[in-house]
Amino acid sequence: MSTASGFEEFSFINWLRKQVKPSSRVSTGIGDDAAVVSAPKGDLLLTIDTLVEGVDFEAGKATWREVGWKAVASSLSDVAAMGGVADYVVISASLSERNDRAMMEGLFRGMEGAAGEFAVEIVGGDISAGSKSLVVAVASVGHVAEGRRAVLREGARVGDAIMVTGELGGSSLGGHLRFRPRLREAAILMDMCTPTSMIDVSDGLLLDLSHVLEDSGVGALLYEEAIPISQAAVELSGRTGRSALEHALSDGEDYELLFTVGGEDAGKLTTGEPLGVRVSRIGEVTGEGLKMKRRGGEVTNLEPKGYEHRV
Amino acid sequence: MSTASGFEEFSFINWLRKQVKPSSRVSTGIGDDAAVVSAPKGDLLLTIDTLVEGVDFEAGKATWREVGWKAVASSLSDVAAMGGVADYVVISASLSERNDRAMMEGLFRGMEGAAGEFAVEIVGGDISAGSKSLVVAVASVGHVAEGRRAVLREGARVGDAIMVTGELGGSSLGGHLRFRPRLREAAILMDMCTPTSMIDVSDGLLLDLSHVLEDSGVGALLYEEAIPISQAAVELSGRTGRSALEHALSDGEDYELLFTVGGEDAGKLTTGEPLGVRVSRIGEVTGEGLKMKRRGGEVTNLEPKGYEHRV
Repeated sequence: MSTASGFEEFSFINWLRKQVKPSSRVSTGIGDDAAVVSAPKGDLLLTIDTLVEGVDFEAGKATWREVGWKAVASSLSDVAAMGGVADYVVISASLSERNDRAMMEGLFRGMEGAAGEFAVEIVGGDISAGSKSLVVAVASVGHVAEGRRAVLREGARVGDAIMVTGELGGSSLGGHLRFRPRLREAAILMDMCTPTSMIDVSDGLLLDLSHVLEDSGVGALLYEEAIPISQAAVELSGRTGRSALEHALSDGEDYELLFTVGGEDAGKLTTGEPLGVRVSRIGEVTGEGLKMKRRGGEVTNLEPKGYEHRV
Repeated sequence: MSTASGFEEFSFINWLRKQVKPSSRVSTGIGDDAAVVSAPKGDLLLTIDTLVEGVDFEAGKATWREVGWKAVASSLSDVAAMGGVADYVVISASLSERNDRAMMEGLFRGMEGAAGEFAVEIVGGDISAGSKSLVVAVASVGHVAEGRRAVLREGARVGDAIMVTGELGGSSLGGHLRFRPRLREAAILMDMCTPTSMIDVSDGLLLDLSHVLEDSGVGALLYEEAIPISQAAVELSGRTGRSALEHALSDGEDYELLFTVGGEDAGKLTTGEPLGVRVSRIGEVTGEGLKMKRRGGEVTNLEPKGYEHRV
């Protein structure tokens, strides 16, 4: 923890120190130069994710609590996407002159809410003033459970089934502020089977899938009828004139898990609801290209669409 | 690693992946959802530090390479201030529309320079666009060497000697962009003795000392004649009309180590130059208050002065 902007932030950090009750694995939490924590067993997972005002949220449309939740949740989602367990977060908040104490408290309450919900500890932070945009960066430290291996983007094999949790599209209607990182689902998944590749859907299904395909050196055939389209995508479609399917394929920030598994594992995952959320088998890994089998049986090429800002 | 701003950043990240050559302790570096790294032995140290354009650097006055160096170096300094060993960093860069590819490369070269110099690996990052100010946050992961304990701010005891490495003041003349985090010096220090408290001088000697005093529930008497005044402080004094001593006491961002030790250890540290840099015994820990023994022998009260922005 360090500060570079005077006494007001010091008093906020003193307030923060009183809010956070560290567990026994945290020897020193917020308030020293660095946190001192027990190392989790096994390999570490390290990641950092950033929210920028006007890009990832808009001050008037999101509450500060929602912004805080999203900042922590989106970083934790990257740990889930490795098949990992999240342990600790450290947070950087760069405030603008429009940000006041009430805002900082709201932001912290949202962060604390996400951390508490997912059994992660906030062990450090750095609050700066003088930015023209509010920027929040959250670094997460997690680990891979003993006996498991982190699931990378590069392991998809031809013939694997392509799976996705939950429903996709339309997060700009509010879901992008309230999503739950799929840490619990990832833990069950890792217990049940061995995903060959995984990523979270942050930039949009097609774009995130294209990262997996590129890193794995393979292609994909998606089944139009199997794409899980959210109610929000349908609603958004009514406003934008684009199809709900298009929203499900290209909208980002659903933070669902997109992964590949062998055919037998795919069957286990779609029988009942073992992960506690819907899991859809949306396609199969092929040698090359990115195609979709339409409802009518026709096969067409797909372009990975870029992320479109939510706000 | 994730991105939220389209294809240009993707291509930069592909470039980055090629620049960074991970060692054997890094199973997966830049380019997946999270890095997978070997956990260092012993307790982990976690910290995050942030640079904000217009506050911690000014685009016209600093090169991008210097900004990158400072971003990593200031985060590593927090690990040094715990008596720790630095292992990994993950980096968040929120770019403004004024930032181009050449700037990003310069920034990365500076980060890489600092990481290489201090044997730390850059294992992940997140590049965002759309901020109105450039904001760079660097989270560092380190550890405490086996058989050692992290040095906190809270352990100073009445009678301890107050010590500082290097020379202080005037970093705004450029030193704040080129300092070396005292990781090597901290390692030697931890081998030679057991500091009772430690902090790095980021906000200014008096202000950082006051954090130690408050957390330890003690006071301090400083010796005016022992304060190591830098040449830059003297030079700056000529411009500001404030005394060089005042600059040494109140300027920030020298990133020297300020620590307390028992009297015997203090003697060892000031005999020869065992840390490879000057170490000054600048005062002693007292029951309460913050005072200075002037050159004439008179004892006066000091006010911890706040950080003043460099730019």
